[in-house]
Amino acid sequence: MHRGKTLEEKLFYLKKYLTFWDMLTVQQRELLIRNTAAASYSKGETIYSAEHECVGILILQHGEIRTYILSEEGREVTLFRLGAGEICVLSASCILKSITFDVHIEAEQDSEILVLNSAVFSRLMEDNIHAELFALRLAAEKFSEVMWAMEQILFLNFDARLSIFLLDETAKTGENTLQLTHEQIARYIGSAREVVTRMLHYFVDEGAVALTRGRVTVLDKKYLQAIAAQPAKQ
Amino acid sequence: MHRGKTLEEKLFYLKKYLTFWDMLTVQQRELLIRNTAAASYSKGETIYSAEHECVGILILQHGEIRTYILSEEGREVTLFRLGAGEICVLSASCILKSITFDVHIEAEQDSEILVLNSAVFSRLMEDNIHAELFALRLAAEKFSEVMWAMEQILFLNFDARLSIFLLDETAKTGENTLQLTHEQIARYIGSAREVVTRMLHYFVDEGAVALTRGRVTVLDKKYLQAIAAQPAKQ
Repeated sequence: MHRGKTLEEKLFYLKKYLTFWDMLTVQQRELLIRNTAAASYSKGETIYSAEHECVGILILQHGEIRTYILSEEGREVTLFRLGAGEICVLSASCILKSITFDVHIEAEQDSEILVLNSAVFSRLMEDNIHAELFALRLAAEKFSEVMWAMEQILFLNFDARLSIFLLDETAKTGENTLQLTHEQIARYIGSAREVVTRMLHYFVDEGAVALTRGRVTVLDKKYLQAIAAQPAKQ
Repeated sequence: MHRGKTLEEKLFYLKKYLTFWDMLTVQQRELLIRNTAAASYSKGETIYSAEHECVGILILQHGEIRTYILSEEGREVTLFRLGAGEICVLSASCILKSITFDVHIEAEQDSEILVLNSAVFSRLMEDNIHAELFALRLAAEKFSEVMWAMEQILFLNFDARLSIFLLDETAKTGENTLQLTHEQIARYIGSAREVVTRMLHYFVDEGAVALTRGRVTVLDKKYLQAIAAQPAKQ
Protein backbone atom coordinates (compact mmCIF):
# COMPACT_ATOMS: atom_id res chain seq x y z
CA MET A 1 0.00 0.00 0.00
CA HIS A 2 2.68 2.48 1.00
CA ARG A 3 4.92 3.41 -1.89
CA GLY A 4 2.50 1.84 -4.36
CA LYS A 5 -0.33 4.17 -3.40
CA THR A 6 -2.74 4.46 -6.26
CA LEU A 7 -3.25 7.65 -8.19
CA GLU A 8 -6.92 7.58 -7.17
CA GLU A 9 -6.05 7.56 -3.51
CA LYS A 10 -3.66 10.50 -3.88
CA LEU A 11 -6.25 12.41 -5.83
CA PHE A 12 -8.87 11.70 -3.17
CA TYR A 13 -6.70 13.20 -0.43
CA LEU A 14 -5.51 16.19 -2.44
CA LYS A 15 -9.06 17.11 -3.44
CA LYS A 16 -10.34 16.64 0.07
CA TYR A 17 -7.70 18.53 2.01
CA LEU A 18 -6.33 21.16 -0.36
CA THR A 19 -9.22 23.58 -0.07
CA PHE A 20 -7.91 25.57 -3.04
CA TRP A 21 -8.06 22.58 -5.39
CA ASP A 22 -10.93 24.11 -7.38
CA MET A 23 -8.87 27.25 -7.99
CA LEU A 24 -6.11 25.32 -9.75
CA THR A 25 -5.74 24.85 -13.47
CA VAL A 26 -5.70 21.33 -14.89
CA GLN A 27 -1.94 21.66 -15.39
CA GLN A 28 -1.39 22.76 -11.79
CA ARG A 29 -3.42 19.82 -10.51
CA GLU A 30 -1.40 17.39 -12.59
CA LEU A 31 1.83 18.96 -11.36
CA LEU A 32 0.71 18.49 -7.76
CA ILE A 33 -0.39 14.90 -8.27
CA ARG A 34 2.91 14.00 -9.95
CA ASN A 35 4.88 15.61 -7.11
CA THR A 36 3.02 14.15 -4.19
CA ALA A 37 4.69 11.13 -2.67
CA ALA A 38 3.45 8.66 -0.09
CA ALA A 39 5.79 8.11 2.83
CA SER A 40 5.74 5.91 5.90
CA TYR A 41 7.38 6.92 9.15
CA SER A 42 7.88 4.66 12.14
CA LYS A 43 7.04 5.78 15.64
CA GLY A 44 9.84 7.99 16.93
CA GLU A 45 11.30 8.71 13.49
CA THR A 46 12.30 12.29 12.69
CA ILE A 47 10.30 13.70 9.79
CA TYR A 48 11.77 17.17 9.75
CA SER A 49 14.35 19.23 11.59
CA ALA A 50 16.59 22.21 10.91
CA GLU A 51 19.29 19.85 9.64
CA HIS A 52 16.91 18.00 7.33
CA GLU A 53 15.91 19.31 3.96
CA CYS A 54 12.63 21.14 3.72
CA VAL A 55 10.27 18.19 3.22
CA GLY A 56 7.18 19.97 1.99
CA ILE A 57 3.52 20.12 2.93
CA LEU A 58 2.38 17.01 4.83
CA ILE A 59 -1.10 15.49 4.66
CA LEU A 60 -1.51 12.93 7.45
CA GLN A 61 -3.43 9.87 6.33
CA HIS A 62 -2.86 7.74 9.41
CA GLY A 63 -0.91 8.15 12.63
CA GLU A 64 0.17 11.14 14.64
CA ILE A 65 3.04 13.61 14.40
CA ARG A 66 4.47 15.96 16.99
CA THR A 67 6.01 19.38 16.38
CA TYR A 68 8.45 20.70 18.94
CA ILE A 69 11.24 23.19 19.50
CA LEU A 70 14.58 22.10 20.86
CA SER A 71 17.08 23.97 23.00
CA GLU A 72 20.79 23.65 22.36
CA GLU A 73 21.01 21.27 25.30
CA GLY A 74 18.30 19.07 23.89
CA ARG A 75 15.31 20.20 25.92
CA GLU A 76 12.12 19.73 23.93
CA VAL A 77 8.97 21.81 24.13
CA THR A 78 5.99 20.39 22.27
CA LEU A 79 4.12 22.97 20.19
CA PHE A 80 1.29 20.82 18.86
CA ARG A 81 0.42 17.39 17.54
CA LEU A 82 -1.44 16.53 14.34
CA GLY A 83 -3.57 13.49 13.56
CA ALA A 84 -5.18 11.86 10.53
CA GLY A 85 -6.70 14.35 8.10
CA GLU A 86 -4.60 17.24 9.34
CA ILE A 87 -2.06 19.17 7.32
CA CYS A 88 1.36 20.39 8.38
CA VAL A 89 2.86 23.45 6.70
CA LEU A 90 5.68 24.18 9.12
CA SER A 91 7.51 21.26 7.51
CA ALA A 92 7.60 23.49 4.43
CA SER A 93 8.65 26.64 6.26
CA CYS A 94 11.54 27.07 3.79
CA ILE A 95 8.99 28.16 1.21
CA LEU A 96 7.11 30.53 3.52
CA LYS A 97 9.36 33.55 3.73
CA SER A 98 7.68 34.95 6.82
CA ILE A 99 8.30 31.78 8.86
CA THR A 100 11.88 31.93 10.09
CA PHE A 101 12.00 29.72 13.15
CA ASP A 102 13.12 26.12 13.33
CA VAL A 103 10.84 23.35 14.41
CA HIS A 104 11.34 19.63 14.69
CA ILE A 105 8.71 17.15 13.63
CA GLU A 106 8.65 13.50 14.56
CA ALA A 107 6.28 10.61 14.10
CA GLU A 108 4.52 10.08 17.42
CA GLN A 109 2.91 6.92 16.06
CA ASP A 110 3.60 4.91 12.93
CA SER A 111 2.34 7.30 10.28
CA GLU A 112 1.31 7.31 6.64
CA ILE A 113 1.83 10.71 5.09
CA LEU A 114 1.36 12.29 1.69
CA VAL A 115 4.21 14.72 1.05
CA LEU A 116 3.74 17.58 -1.41
CA ASN A 117 7.16 18.47 -2.72
CA SER A 118 8.25 21.84 -1.37
CA ALA A 119 9.92 23.11 -4.55
CA VAL A 120 6.79 22.32 -6.54
CA PHE A 121 4.53 23.89 -3.95
CA SER A 122 6.76 26.95 -3.93
CA ARG A 123 6.37 27.29 -7.70
CA LEU A 124 2.63 26.79 -7.33
CA MET A 125 2.48 29.60 -4.77
CA GLU A 126 4.09 31.93 -7.27
CA ASP A 127 1.59 31.01 -9.97
CA ASN A 128 -1.52 30.78 -7.83
CA ILE A 129 -2.19 33.11 -4.96
CA HIS A 130 -4.69 30.67 -3.43
CA ALA A 131 -1.91 28.21 -2.69
CA GLU A 132 -0.01 30.78 -0.60
CA LEU A 133 -3.20 31.89 1.11
CA PHE A 134 -3.92 28.27 2.03
CA ALA A 135 -0.47 27.76 3.54
CA LEU A 136 -0.55 31.07 5.45
CA ARG A 137 -4.00 30.36 6.87
CA LEU A 138 -2.78 27.03 8.18
CA ALA A 139 0.31 28.73 9.62
CA ALA A 140 -1.87 31.31 11.39
CA GLU A 141 -3.96 28.49 12.91
CA LYS A 142 -0.80 26.91 14.21
CA PHE A 143 0.25 30.30 15.58
CA SER A 144 -2.91 30.22 17.67
CA GLU A 145 -2.26 26.67 18.89
CA VAL A 146 1.32 27.49 19.77
CA MET A 147 0.20 30.54 21.74
CA TRP A 148 -2.14 28.32 23.69
CA ALA A 149 0.65 25.87 24.47
CA MET A 150 2.96 28.71 25.49
CA GLU A 151 0.37 30.17 27.84
CA GLN A 152 0.04 26.76 29.49
CA ILE A 153 3.78 26.59 29.96
CA LEU A 154 4.28 30.17 31.08
CA PHE A 155 1.26 30.74 33.24
CA LEU A 156 0.09 27.49 34.74
CA ASN A 157 1.43 25.96 37.88
CA PHE A 158 3.33 22.83 37.11
CA ASP A 159 1.10 20.59 39.24
CA ALA A 160 -1.95 21.91 37.37
CA ARG A 161 -0.27 21.27 34.01
CA LEU A 162 0.60 17.71 34.96
CA SER A 163 -2.91 17.08 36.30
CA ILE A 164 -4.51 18.42 33.14
CA PHE A 165 -2.22 16.28 31.03
CA LEU A 166 -3.05 13.09 32.97
CA LEU A 167 -6.79 13.81 32.85
CA ASP A 168 -6.68 14.59 29.13
CA GLU A 169 -4.78 11.39 28.39
CA THR A 170 -7.15 9.20 30.38
CA ALA A 171 -10.09 10.86 28.64
CA LYS A 172 -8.42 10.36 25.25
CA THR A 173 -7.51 6.72 25.74
CA GLY A 174 -10.49 5.77 27.91
CA GLU A 175 -7.99 3.99 30.21
CA ASN A 176 -6.90 4.93 33.70
CA THR A 177 -3.50 3.34 33.12
CA LEU A 178 -1.30 5.33 30.75
CA GLN A 179 1.64 3.70 29.01
CA LEU A 180 3.97 6.65 29.42
CA THR A 181 7.40 7.11 30.89
CA HIS A 182 8.22 10.20 32.93
CA GLU A 183 10.53 11.20 30.12
CA GLN A 184 7.65 11.10 27.62
CA ILE A 185 5.37 13.07 29.92
CA ALA A 186 8.09 15.68 30.39
CA ARG A 187 8.36 16.10 26.64
CA TYR A 188 4.63 16.44 26.19
CA ILE A 189 4.26 19.17 28.73
CA GLY A 190 7.55 20.92 28.10
CA SER A 191 9.30 20.15 31.33
CA ALA A 192 12.23 18.17 32.67
CA ARG A 193 12.00 14.48 33.58
CA GLU A 194 13.13 15.04 37.16
CA VAL A 195 10.43 17.64 37.70
CA VAL A 196 7.78 15.23 36.41
CA THR A 197 9.11 12.39 38.56
CA ARG A 198 9.09 14.60 41.65
CA MET A 199 5.53 15.72 41.07
CA LEU A 200 4.31 12.20 40.24
CA HIS A 201 5.76 10.93 43.52
CA TYR A 202 3.97 13.74 45.26
CA PHE A 203 0.75 12.59 43.59
CA VAL A 204 1.51 9.02 44.72
CA ASP A 205 1.82 10.23 48.29
CA GLU A 206 -1.53 11.94 47.90
CA GLY A 207 -3.05 8.68 46.68
CA ALA A 208 -3.93 10.25 43.33
CA VAL A 209 -1.81 8.02 41.07
CA ALA A 210 0.15 4.77 41.18
CA LEU A 211 3.40 4.22 39.32
CA THR A 212 4.82 1.09 37.76
CA ARG A 213 7.60 0.83 35.16
CA GLY A 214 6.60 2.86 32.14
CA ARG A 215 3.06 3.35 33.43
CA VAL A 216 1.04 5.85 35.36
CA THR A 217 -2.34 4.81 36.77
CA VAL A 218 -4.78 7.51 37.76
CA LEU A 219 -6.54 6.52 41.01
CA ASP A 220 -8.23 9.75 42.08
CA LYS A 221 -9.55 11.92 39.27
CA LYS A 222 -11.32 14.30 41.65
CA TYR A 223 -8.02 15.15 43.30
CA LEU A 224 -6.40 15.87 39.94
CA GLN A 225 -9.42 17.88 38.81
CA ALA A 226 -9.14 20.08 41.90
CA ILE A 227 -5.44 20.67 41.18
CA ALA A 228 -6.18 21.33 37.51
CA ALA A 229 -8.79 23.92 38.45
CA GLN A 230 -6.33 25.98 40.48
CA PRO A 231 -5.91 29.50 39.18
CA ALA A 232 -2.83 30.09 37.06
CA LYS A 233 0.01 31.85 38.78
CA GLN A 234 3.37 33.65 38.90
CA MET B 1 -1.71 67.60 13.54
CA HIS B 2 -3.37 64.60 15.17
CA ARG B 3 -7.06 64.38 14.38
CA GLY B 4 -6.69 66.94 11.63
CA LYS B 5 -4.24 64.84 9.66
CA THR B 6 -4.38 65.75 6.02
CA LEU B 7 -5.67 63.46 3.36
CA GLU B 8 -2.29 63.66 1.65
CA GLU B 9 -0.51 62.40 4.70
CA LYS B 10 -2.87 59.45 5.11
CA LEU B 11 -2.48 58.61 1.45
CA PHE B 12 1.29 58.75 1.76
CA TYR B 13 1.30 56.19 4.59
CA LEU B 14 -1.27 53.88 3.04
CA LYS B 15 0.58 53.78 -0.29
CA LYS B 16 3.91 53.28 1.41
CA TYR B 17 3.01 50.54 3.88
CA LEU B 18 0.10 48.65 2.33
CA THR B 19 2.13 46.64 -0.15
CA PHE B 20 -1.05 45.53 -1.94
CA TRP B 21 -2.11 49.13 -2.70
CA ASP B 22 -1.49 48.67 -6.43
CA MET B 23 -3.80 45.66 -6.49
CA LEU B 24 -6.78 47.69 -5.25
CA THR B 25 -9.46 49.27 -7.38
CA VAL B 26 -9.97 53.02 -7.20
CA GLN B 27 -13.14 52.40 -5.17
CA GLN B 28 -11.31 50.15 -2.71
CA ARG B 29 -8.60 52.77 -2.24
CA GLU B 30 -11.16 55.44 -1.55
CA LEU B 31 -12.93 53.19 0.92
CA LEU B 32 -9.67 52.61 2.78
CA ILE B 33 -8.76 56.29 2.86
CA ARG B 34 -12.19 57.25 4.17
CA ASN B 35 -11.99 54.60 6.89
CA THR B 36 -8.51 55.27 8.11
CA ALA B 37 -8.37 57.41 11.22
CA ALA B 38 -5.44 59.06 12.94
CA ALA B 39 -5.18 58.36 16.65
CA SER B 40 -2.83 59.45 19.41
CA TYR B 41 -2.02 57.26 22.38
CA SER B 42 -0.15 58.38 25.46
CA LYS B 43 2.64 56.32 26.92
CA GLY B 44 1.16 53.48 28.96
CA GLU B 45 -2.27 53.69 27.36
CA THR B 46 -3.99 50.46 26.33
CA ILE B 47 -4.60 50.31 22.60
CA TYR B 48 -6.14 46.88 22.43
CA SER B 49 -7.10 44.02 24.70
CA ALA B 50 -9.56 41.16 24.78
CA GLU B 51 -12.11 43.44 26.46
CA HIS B 52 -11.66 46.22 23.91
CA GLU B 53 -13.31 46.17 20.55
CA CYS B 54 -11.25 44.95 17.62
CA VAL B 55 -9.49 48.18 16.66
CA GLY B 56 -8.23 47.32 13.21
CA ILE B 57 -4.92 47.34 11.39
CA LEU B 58 -2.43 49.79 12.92
CA ILE B 59 0.23 51.70 10.99
CA LEU B 60 2.70 53.27 13.43
CA GLN B 61 3.76 56.75 12.37
CA HIS B 62 5.62 57.72 15.54
CA GLY B 63 6.23 56.06 18.87
CA GLU B 64 6.40 52.47 20.00
CA ILE B 65 3.83 49.86 20.94
CA ARG B 66 4.20 46.65 22.89
CA THR B 67 2.24 43.43 22.42
CA TYR B 68 1.97 41.06 25.34
CA ILE B 69 -0.01 38.20 26.78
CA LEU B 70 -1.43 38.35 30.27
CA SER B 71 -2.06 35.61 32.81
CA GLU B 72 -5.18 35.61 34.96
CA GLU B 73 -3.09 36.94 37.83
CA GLY B 74 -1.79 39.80 35.75
CA ARG B 75 1.63 38.47 34.80
CA GLU B 76 2.70 39.94 31.46
CA VAL B 77 4.91 38.32 28.86
CA THR B 78 6.03 40.61 26.07
CA LEU B 79 5.72 39.09 22.60
CA PHE B 80 7.19 41.89 20.51
CA ARG B 81 7.37 45.65 20.14
CA LEU B 82 6.73 47.70 17.01
CA GLY B 83 8.18 51.07 16.05
CA ALA B 84 7.56 53.76 13.44
CA GLY B 85 6.77 52.40 9.99
CA GLU B 86 5.68 49.03 11.31
CA ILE B 87 2.23 47.53 11.00
CA CYS B 88 0.25 45.61 13.58
CA VAL B 89 -2.34 43.07 12.45
CA LEU B 90 -2.92 41.27 15.74
CA SER B 91 -4.98 44.29 16.79
CA ALA B 92 -7.35 43.17 14.04
CA SER B 93 -7.32 39.51 14.97
CA CYS B 94 -11.12 39.51 15.06
CA ILE B 95 -11.09 39.63 11.27
CA LEU B 96 -8.47 36.90 10.86
CA LYS B 97 -10.37 33.72 11.53
CA SER B 98 -7.26 31.64 12.07
CA ILE B 99 -5.99 33.88 14.89
CA THR B 100 -7.83 32.88 18.03
CA PHE B 101 -5.62 33.98 20.91
CA ASP B 102 -5.88 37.15 22.91
CA VAL B 103 -3.13 39.72 23.01
CA HIS B 104 -2.86 43.06 24.73
CA ILE B 105 -1.32 46.05 23.04
CA GLU B 106 -0.21 49.20 24.80
CA ALA B 107 1.60 52.37 23.84
CA GLU B 108 5.16 52.03 25.09
CA GLN B 109 5.85 55.64 24.11
CA ASP B 110 3.51 58.44 23.09
CA SER B 111 2.40 57.19 19.69
CA GLU B 112 0.76 58.47 16.54
CA ILE B 113 -1.06 55.70 14.76
CA LEU B 114 -3.17 55.35 11.63
CA VAL B 115 -5.99 52.91 12.29
CA LEU B 116 -7.61 51.06 9.40
CA ASN B 117 -11.14 50.22 10.49
CA SER B 118 -11.48 46.48 11.04
CA ALA B 119 -14.96 46.08 9.57
CA VAL B 120 -13.85 47.85 6.41
CA PHE B 121 -10.66 45.84 6.19
CA SER B 122 -12.67 42.68 6.69
CA ARG B 123 -14.92 43.62 3.75
CA LEU B 124 -11.84 44.44 1.70
CA MET B 125 -10.39 41.01 2.44
CA GLU B 126 -13.52 39.41 1.05
CA ASP B 127 -13.33 41.44 -2.13
CA ASN B 128 -9.59 41.38 -2.66
CA ILE B 129 -7.49 38.36 -1.87
CA HIS B 130 -4.32 40.48 -1.72
CA ALA B 131 -5.58 42.20 1.41
CA GLU B 132 -5.94 38.90 3.26
CA LEU B 133 -2.58 37.69 1.97
CA PHE B 134 -0.99 40.90 3.27
CA ALA B 135 -2.49 40.45 6.74
CA LEU B 136 -1.60 36.76 6.93
CA ARG B 137 1.99 37.39 5.84
CA LEU B 138 2.35 39.95 8.61
CA ALA B 139 0.81 37.52 11.09
CA ALA B 140 3.28 34.81 10.02
CA GLU B 141 6.18 37.22 10.57
CA LYS B 142 4.90 37.91 14.05
CA PHE B 143 4.60 34.16 14.59
CA SER B 144 8.33 33.96 13.93
CA GLU B 145 9.10 36.82 16.32
CA VAL B 146 6.95 35.33 19.03
CA MET B 147 8.69 31.98 18.64
CA TRP B 148 12.00 33.74 19.12
CA ALA B 149 10.75 35.44 22.28
CA MET B 150 9.38 32.17 23.60
CA GLU B 151 12.66 30.39 23.00
CA GLN B 152 14.43 33.10 24.97
CA ILE B 153 12.03 32.64 27.84
CA LEU B 154 11.97 28.87 27.78
CA PHE B 155 15.56 28.05 27.01
CA LEU B 156 17.86 30.83 28.16
CA ASN B 157 19.26 31.17 31.62
CA PHE B 158 17.73 34.12 33.33
CA ASP B 159 21.07 35.89 33.86
CA ALA B 160 21.78 35.60 30.14
CA ARG B 161 18.35 37.01 29.29
CA LEU B 162 18.82 39.95 31.58
CA SER B 163 22.33 40.61 30.24
CA ILE B 164 21.11 40.49 26.65
CA PHE B 165 18.28 42.87 27.51
CA LEU B 166 20.59 45.40 29.16
CA LEU B 167 23.09 45.26 26.29
CA ASP B 168 20.35 45.63 23.69
CA GLU B 169 18.87 48.61 25.48
CA THR B 170 22.21 50.41 25.82
CA ALA B 171 22.89 49.73 22.14
CA LYS B 172 19.43 51.02 21.20
CA THR B 173 19.53 54.18 23.27
CA GLY B 174 23.27 54.83 22.93
CA GLU B 175 23.29 55.47 26.70
CA ASN B 176 24.83 53.40 29.48
CA THR B 177 22.20 54.63 31.92
CA LEU B 178 18.76 53.17 31.27
CA GLN B 179 15.64 54.85 32.67
CA LEU B 180 13.92 51.64 33.64
CA THR B 181 12.43 50.30 36.85
CA HIS B 182 12.89 46.67 37.80
CA GLU B 183 9.18 46.27 37.23
CA GLN B 184 9.51 47.49 33.65
CA ILE B 185 12.49 45.24 32.98
CA ALA B 186 10.55 42.28 34.37
CA ARG B 187 7.71 42.97 31.96
CA TYR B 188 10.02 43.28 28.99
CA ILE B 189 11.70 39.97 29.56
CA GLY B 190 8.71 38.10 30.88
CA SER B 191 9.81 37.61 34.44
CA ALA B 192 8.89 38.68 37.96
CA ARG B 193 10.12 41.92 39.52
CA GLU B 194 11.74 40.17 42.48
CA VAL B 195 13.72 37.91 40.17
CA VAL B 196 14.99 40.92 38.23
CA THR B 197 15.89 42.77 41.43
CA ARG B 198 17.77 39.77 42.76
CA MET B 199 19.78 39.35 39.59
CA LEU B 200 20.49 43.09 39.29
CA HIS B 201 21.88 43.10 42.82
CA TYR B 202 24.03 40.15 41.86
CA PHE B 203 25.31 42.18 38.92
CA VAL B 204 25.98 45.11 41.26
CA ASP B 205 28.10 42.85 43.46
CA GLU B 206 30.00 41.80 40.35
CA GLY B 207 30.64 45.45 39.49
CA ALA B 208 28.73 45.08 36.22
CA VAL B 209 25.93 47.58 36.89
CA ALA B 210 25.02 50.37 39.30
CA LEU B 211 21.48 51.03 40.49
CA THR B 212 19.76 54.26 41.40
CA ARG B 213 16.03 54.90 41.70
CA GLY B 214 14.39 54.02 38.40
CA ARG B 215 17.74 53.67 36.65
CA VAL B 216 20.22 50.99 35.77
CA THR B 217 23.72 51.99 34.67
CA VAL B 218 25.80 49.45 32.81
CA LEU B 219 29.43 49.64 34.02
CA ASP B 220 30.98 46.49 32.57
CA LYS B 221 29.71 45.45 29.17
CA LYS B 222 32.33 42.73 28.76
CA TYR B 223 31.02 41.01 31.86
CA LEU B 224 27.46 41.11 30.58
CA GLN B 225 28.58 39.95 27.14
CA ALA B 226 30.26 36.92 28.68
CA ILE B 227 27.06 36.07 30.58
CA ALA B 228 24.97 36.65 27.48
CA ALA B 229 27.16 34.27 25.48
CA GLN B 230 26.57 31.39 27.90
CA PRO B 231 24.99 28.37 26.31
CA ALA B 232 21.26 28.04 26.85
CA LYS B 233 20.21 25.49 29.43
CA GLN B 234 17.66 23.38 31.32
